[in-house]
Amino acid sequence: MEAELIAHLRQRIGSHPLVRLGLGDDAAVLDMAGTDECVLTVDLLTEGVDFVLAEVDPRRIGRKALAVNLSDLAAMASRPLAGVVALALPRRGGLDLAVELYEGMLPLAEAHGLAIAGGDTNSWNGPLVISVTLVGQVTPRGPLTRRGARPGDSVVVTGAFGGSILGRQFDFEPRVREALILAECCELHAGIDVSDGLSLDLSRLCGESGCGAVIDATLIPVSPDAERLSVASADGSTALDHALGDGEDFELILAMPPADAERMIAELPFETALTRIGRFVPQRGLWLAAPGGRQIPLAPRGFQHDFD
Amino acid sequence: MEAELIAHLRQRIGSHPLVRLGLGDDAAVLDMAGTDECVLTVDLLTEGVDFVLAEVDPRRIGRKALAVNLSDLAAMASRPLAGVVALALPRRGGLDLAVELYEGMLPLAEAHGLAIAGGDTNSWNGPLVISVTLVGQVTPRGPLTRRGARPGDSVVVTGAFGGSILGRQFDFEPRVREALILAECCELHAGIDVSDGLSLDLSRLCGESGCGAVIDATLIPVSPDAERLSVASADGSTALDHALGDGEDFELILAMPPADAERMIAELPFETALTRIGRFVPQRGLWLAAPGGRQIPLAPRGFQHDFD
Repeated sequence: MEAELIAHLRQRIGSHPLVRLGLGDDAAVLDMAGTDECVLTVDLLTEGVDFVLAEVDPRRIGRKALAVNLSDLAAMASRPLAGVVALALPRRGGLDLAVELYEGMLPLAEAHGLAIAGGDTNSWNGPLVISVTLVGQVTPRGPLTRRGARPGDSVVVTGAFGGSILGRQFDFEPRVREALILAECCELHAGIDVSDGLSLDLSRLCGESGCGAVIDATLIPVSPDAERLSVASADGSTALDHALGDGEDFELILAMPPADAERMIAELPFETALTRIGRFVPQRGLWLAAPGGRQIPLAPRGFQHDFD
Repeated sequence: MEAELIAHLRQRIGSHPLVRLGLGDDAAVLDMAGTDECVLTVDLLTEGVDFVLAEVDPRRIGRKALAVNLSDLAAMASRPLAGVVALALPRRGGLDLAVELYEGMLPLAEAHGLAIAGGDTNSWNGPLVISVTLVGQVTPRGPLTRRGARPGDSVVVTGAFGGSILGRQFDFEPRVREALILAECCELHAGIDVSDGLSLDLSRLCGESGCGAVIDATLIPVSPDAERLSVASADGSTALDHALGDGEDFELILAMPPADAERMIAELPFETALTRIGRFVPQRGLWLAAPGGRQIPLAPRGFQHDFD
């Protein structure tokens, strides 16, 4: 019963200074005084594509549904404000499942000061679907977009890449704090989060910025998970292949002036690794810098939703 | 291909003064200067529950997905600003389907000055799911909520009720303009839109306001669709039964002082019918006023999402 779930969540979710009216009305009411620009993002996760319900604790699924959206706010260098959650639940066990999904979301929401302000709960004879929409606040530095990378900027990434399928796809930390600190401390020209693959998302950022990038294979931070996958791989994929083409790392790719990149990597104002992996160039396209100064064209690879 | 859809929509969707950055980045950026309070609402529609894809033009499905959300903004007496759309598309024919869904949404969005600012498009081996989230602007009168109905207030409704299943469930007009005009011209104490049934949604409004209501069966505006359904009915349901218990009318139930109700019904500042159907009372519960001054307890009926 939806009413039962709302009653539970009203108890479970505390008050939040920005939420004037939370769950249980036709819409949530948010205090936006002092917010000149906000960002709005939605991500929808489906059973079988983004998770396998039978194999994963529903709390990790709920956490992921929120975390992928927080990662989008990080990519815009925006502060999380509030969110709404829409669920399509299988009829059998739907109430318990919903409670567990929220139990996965709420600690992460709290850690980021985000209010869960409302939602829509449905049941149907289909698989689990979770749609989370977040509102974020743009900082005085303005929103970070995919559009501002300039030739000569460094390509800087957080964390390490590849093999998220071994578990990091659920348990990753969205880089919200890192993005806000970097936006404060240096000049960020463009940013994107890696949801579908390092090379694919870098190519998207380049596309929107009207430029290209050359990255150095020896500089790319390869996750131990990518190493593990490549050892177990039957198709001969290397760890670097996994780092370039696996999706769901939810790390950031950032464009910034080389001097800022050098300074931030030296100072490192947080625990997350920060690495310069290459530079933006005027020509559209992606290249991998190889030993001996050669540049090999790099075909963007990653996860794409195929439909026709 | 998601990229193809985004390219199409970027061409199709014009610019909007409030949208600083629309489709194609990690989030949309909205101009919120001068907006002290905003409302945030989400509604998710699933195939088989909210529509049958094989039986309905996808444009009507897209229109409905947006219209149910606009109806929530109407219930809050808020002005539509911007929205994001998340889709889970069946793989086969998904691109054409997405284009048609948007073709259903866009004219309605335009009619209400709403910007479609972004979205998330997924494919899967499941049925169609559409999740729409809207941001609205609270007027200087403040948001209308379910909480403010007072004993003695009139129960006023827009339009007519029952039998929406004959087609009005797709083609209804969300009562946004009516709500904004009424909020401007008179004292609205509480409001809700009828998504699940007149008696059920009235009981929800009463529950949040801590009061009850007595409604007069002879005053309830019964839709011709409800009459048609009752004639065809095998179970003996009357047209009034349909008006009280059918869902998806998407009309408004409003609480306002009797003098305001009388004045607004007399002046009628729009073409939509406005009818006083009863009054709020101090005792919690719903009653139907019967001939001879009797009051019969009325069990709230309507659509509820059942899961356990």
